[in-house]
Formats: sequence, C-alpha cells, structure tokens
Amino acid sequence: MKPVICEQFGIDFPLFAFSHCRDVVAAVTNAGGFGVLGATAYTPELLDQELSWIDEHVGGKPYGLDLIVPAKFEGKGEKLGRGELASRIPEAYRTFIAELLAKHDIEPETSPKTGPSFLSGDTGQDLLEVAMSHPIKLIANALGVPPDYMIEAGKRNGVPVAALVGAKEHAVKQVQAGVDLIVAQGTEAGGHCGEVTTLVLIPEVLEALAAIGSDIPVLAAGGIVTGKQMAACVAMGAAGAWTGSVWLTTEEAETAPHTVQKFLAASSRDTIRSTGRTGKPARQLVSDWTDAWQPNEGGHKTLPLPLQSMVAEPIIRRIDVLAAQGHPGAQALATYFVGQGVGLMNKVKPAKEVVREFIEDYLAATERLSNSLPD
Amino acid sequence: MKPVICEQFGIDFPLFAFSHCRDVVAAVTNAGGFGVLGATAYTPELLDQELSWIDEHVGGKPYGLDLIVPAKFEGKGEKLGRGELASRIPEAYRTFIAELLAKHDIEPETSPKTGPSFLSGDTGQDLLEVAMSHPIKLIANALGVPPDYMIEAGKRNGVPVAALVGAKEHAVKQVQAGVDLIVAQGTEAGGHCGEVTTLVLIPEVLEALAAIGSDIPVLAAGGIVTGKQMAACVAMGAAGAWTGSVWLTTEEAETAPHTVQKFLAASSRDTIRSTGRTGKPARQLVSDWTDAWQPNEGGHKTLPLPLQSMVAEPIIRRIDVLAAQGHPGAQALATYFVGQGVGLMNKVKPAKEVVREFIEDYLAATERLSNSLPD
Repeated sequence: MKPVICEQFGIDFPLFAFSHCRDVVAAVTNAGGFGVLGATAYTPELLDQELSWIDEHVGGKPYGLDLIVPAKFEGKGEKLGRGELASRIPEAYRTFIAELLAKHDIEPETSPKTGPSFLSGDTGQDLLEVAMSHPIKLIANALGVPPDYMIEAGKRNGVPVAALVGAKEHAVKQVQAGVDLIVAQGTEAGGHCGEVTTLVLIPEVLEALAAIGSDIPVLAAGGIVTGKQMAACVAMGAAGAWTGSVWLTTEEAETAPHTVQKFLAASSRDTIRSTGRTGKPARQLVSDWTDAWQPNEGGHKTLPLPLQSMVAEPIIRRIDVLAAQGHPGAQALATYFVGQGVGLMNKVKPAKEVVREFIEDYLAATERLSNSLPD
Repeated sequence: MKPVICEQFGIDFPLFAFSHCRDVVAAVTNAGGFGVLGATAYTPELLDQELSWIDEHVGGKPYGLDLIVPAKFEGKGEKLGRGELASRIPEAYRTFIAELLAKHDIEPETSPKTGPSFLSGDTGQDLLEVAMSHPIKLIANALGVPPDYMIEAGKRNGVPVAALVGAKEHAVKQVQAGVDLIVAQGTEAGGHCGEVTTLVLIPEVLEALAAIGSDIPVLAAGGIVTGKQMAACVAMGAAGAWTGSVWLTTEEAETAPHTVQKFLAASSRDTIRSTGRTGKPARQLVSDWTDAWQPNEGGHKTLPLPLQSMVAEPIIRRIDVLAAQGHPGAQALATYFVGQGVGLMNKVKPAKEVVREFIEDYLAATERLSNSLPD
C-alpha cells in the first residue's frame, strides 16, 4: 500500500522540490517526486509559457506552483505604483549603498534603479489565474496565510493549497484559514525562515494541529538535502519533505557558475539569516552584502517589505553580472538564498540522480533505525 | 544483539541525560539510560560528596561527569585572583546593570559582588582528580577541545572522554586531539551552542569524521526532548542522544517553581541565543535580561568569558531569589538556560517516566518510518 501522501498527490516518493527552474521541476516530477515551480518573479505571460513547457515535458505527471503573497506589506491596499512606493525609500539608504559599492570598486549608477515590487502581492491574483488554466496539482504560498482568493480558487479547481510556516502558531492559523497541506519550515531553510529548527518545529506543529483536531499532512522543510534527513523527519511524523537548496547545484539549475562554486565550497556556517535582501529574515550565503545589513555589527537598518527588495534586487542582479565576469569586489558582495544544508552539497549532479540518491539514503536510514535496538 | 554504544557504556538505551541534579543523574541511570552530572559549579569537596551520593544510589550502574574547561578565556595562564580579574570589568557595565535593576524596582547593591570565575578553567584539574576517585564511566568537556590533562587522565583511568561540538570543524579537531566520543550539539540546545541546527549538524559531522577515517560514536544533542526526535537522529547515523533541558521539569530537578512554570508555558520561540550570561552565545529563556544585552536592539555589549559571568551570575541569582518571592520586576528579568525543546515540555514528571516515554516514543517513530514506504 502506498503512503496516503503519495496516493493524494499521485507520486512514488513524497519528495517535493521547489525550484525557479522549469527543468528541475520536470526532472523531479518525472523521477517520481513532485516538482514545484517558484513563480513569484514571473509576469503572467512568462508563467503561462513556463507552465506550458512543463506540461509538454511531464506527460500528465503531477507538479505544482509556489507564490509569495505576504499578508502584510508596505503600501498594502493603497494601490501604489512603483514610483510612489519608491518615493518612500529614504535617500540615506541609496547613499549607504552607493558607498558600499564604491568600497568594492563598483561605480554607483547615475540614476539608481528601483526594482519591481514583486513581493508586494499585487501580482498574485493574475499569476494564480494563469496557473489554474494549467493542470497544476498544488498551489503553495510561501509567506503568511494565503489570501482568501487563493484558498477559494484552490477549492473551486480541486487544487490543494499549501502554506509554509515557521512556527506552530502560524500552522494553526493556516489550518483554520482552510489550507490543505502544511509545509513546516525550520530556521535552517534557505530564503525566508523563522527561528525554530526543523527538529523542534515538526513535533511542535504536529502536536499543535492534533490539539485542534486536525490531521492534515505536514511536510518537513529546512536543511533537508539528503534522504537520511528526510527519513528523520518522517520518523517524527512528517508526511514527506519539501526541499529547495539541493536543486541549486543540479545540472538542470540555472545557477550561475560562480554561485555554484560558492555553494560547493560552503559549510553550513557560511549561511546567515539576514534582512538585507527583502526586509524579512531570509537565509543566504554570508557576504559583504549581508554584513552591511547586520545592525548589531554597525551595519545599516533594513527597510520593510517590499521596499528593501526594491532597492536591493536591482543592485544584487548587477553584482551577480559583475561577479560572473570575475570582478573581485562583486564576488565579495554576491550572495544567494540557500539553507544550512549547503554544507552537504558537494557535487553537481542531474536532478534525477539526486532523487535516486534520496531514495537510497532514505531506505538506508530506515534500516539503520530499525536495527538500532536489540531484538 | 545490543547496539555497540549500549555495550560500550553498559546501558539499555542510548539516552544520555545531562543534569546539575544528582537525583536526576541517578534516576536516569537506574532507568537504563546514562546520567551525567554537570559539575562545573562545584568545589572539589562538594563534588566528592555528590558523587559519593550517586555511587550509593546507582548500585554500580554507569554514570558520568561534565565539566566546562574552555580553551580560551580572559586571564588564561596569568593565574589571576578573582579580584584582579574583577578589576578588568569596566565601571560602565556596573552602572548599566544598576540602571537595569532600578528600572525593575530592584535596589542596586551598595557594594556589587563579583562571582567566582568558575568558567575560567582554573578549577578543572582539581575537579577531575576528585572525579577519577569515583567509578565514573564518562568525562565530558562542554566547551572546546578538552585540555591534555583531561584526555590523559581518561586514558590512564580507562574512562572515555567526550567533547561537545557545534560545528564539523570542531569535531575533526576533537577527534585529532584524542577524544573517544563526540556530542554534536545543534543551535537549538540550551546553554552554550553554535549556529548549525541538529538536523544539518549530525550528517555534516558524520561526513567530516568519515573523511578523516574516524568512526567514533557521535551522540546527537540540541532540542531533543522526545523519543521521536532521538529516533530521527539515530536514523541519520547518531549513536544515541545527549539531552539536558527535558530533565529541568522532572520531579527530581531542583528547578525553582517559578522557573518550572515559565518552562511549561514557553514555546520554542521563547528562547534566544544570547551572550548576556557568560559572554559566549548560550540559549536561554527570553527575558528583560537577555533583551538588555542584544546589541542590535540598543542593548549593551557583553564582556568576554569569564568576565561577563562574574558580573552577571551573582545578580541573576539575586533576581532568582526575588522572582521566587513574587517580585514582578525580578520575574521579568529572570532567565534560565534551556533549549528550543522547551516548547514540547508541558508537564512535570518523574525522570524515570521521561525515560520510559522516550523509549515508547522511539519505538513508535521506528515503526512509523518502517511503515512509510510501500512494501
């Protein structure tokens, strides 16, 4: 008999793979897992194109979509244009950044750009509409309680809605709001994350949900880059694993070569939970950029969501381009969202191979635990 | 057949229990686990007395001892008296603390006390000598590489030496220094801890040790307060679990009643990794005291080891006495070393019962993992 979660999602192995890269999504789905496309940065047109490509490559096998629609953000409900939001960015921030760039031998821009406010949640509904025109089997919201329109669209279309949480209180709120699947994500996760570690969060969330009479499945996330860690979480009661970082060093990923090199060389302690990119704590590689936004070490305070990313992202993209060209200052500044599991990512592999190794390692861990006690 | 670690230490279940309380140590040992007495705060005379009491109560069953002998500390090798060390404490710190106490309606002392520099490592050798005159089966060093005299005394007396580490690099150093057992402790642990979470640290340490050809046992520590978390770590390759926080709410523990109440009410997010007590990051309950030493939020910078604890500990003990009497200001300031697992500690129980529940929960987790895949 297949585990319930595998029956529910039509998969062989409950390994969920979050990636911004359609090739990874398709490869994992085709290998018996469940690929999830991170779609926040897309325009509706581009998303439609990407999902059509996936549809053509997975032959009806299941995949899903991940959006970031935060519940709270600067300018929420004010229907502000990008220019109006940008006017809320104090000049001092731009000066601080210009000085930081100058210290790294990078010319300040003559007219500093402001990026799209893609974390403002204003594009979520359009993206969702596009997604529902494709045979997606899961829609996830990566930040806070999904908006009502997402939960309603899920129910209307028979698509389960998942929510990422970093604390048991949030899990309870999400279940009460009507989500179908909880992704409990520990502080070791790449990108936005809370403070509680995966090993504590999983039992804490399961206990809190049991206390309100809920038995909806909980996927474990945060630091999981091997089958043995996945097995550990399933032993604690998780239905499966939600992963992200491990796919960044697959052959299919679009990770820049200099970033891949940083990942392969990094240990778990080379990551930090910093507000320097989006204004909310997010784990990423330590760099001169994250150092610059550490207020406890003389760095600058960051702006609230989405203002920080509007300032930071265009510059980080410029830094990435320069870093790829070998610019030493840019390489010192370059960072990338990744979890502590980066310490266990030591080789570039095809995504299919990563799935295969997960399964083998999971089976070995299961046997190890079974053999750990006297007969 | 018993697991190797159980054979090696003469126990039924590889659950190691760190406690400052002799009653907990004896109860866990008598229940088939392995009790470890935290002995850093003792004088040699008191330690002798406590170990004799344990000897009388465990009937030859195995137990161990934990010391903190840091490799680096202010005044190391200078053979400074307490007064000389105390003279290195800037007056501004005492003023800051007096103001903090005043804000909480606590009278400043007319002549502020300085505590013993028990974290200075100067008493370690005397304690070790006392310990070796008892039938201890393990000696652990909680901070950094154990000094040579500890490793030598272990070998001479046939007592395995364990070391706590929070990073794979430290595990490698410890093995090269000659320790017999590694306790890999994640950031979710109570007391001194690193940044890497248990779920990432265990596989990272095992991989690093395998790379240098070592297969010495690795116990998992950090956040473990249930059998399912212990099973998770064993599935990843740990030989067993090293626990601390969970014993603080047992019937045998000497935890003050107001602190027990705080623990039972706390969630994992009510702990923080703060330098406010010893000068090194240590996880404890959030309180007005830990807030006061958060430099990123306008708090005061802390002093290096052992100066911070010389200033802080006498005041924290005074705060504890007042808090126990119901003083509201003192209750807001009171803190206590405890890990994120405190979120799963919801009831006072006998230590023996905690061991029994660990075993049951461990077995259930083992079965859950075995049943997680199709036949």
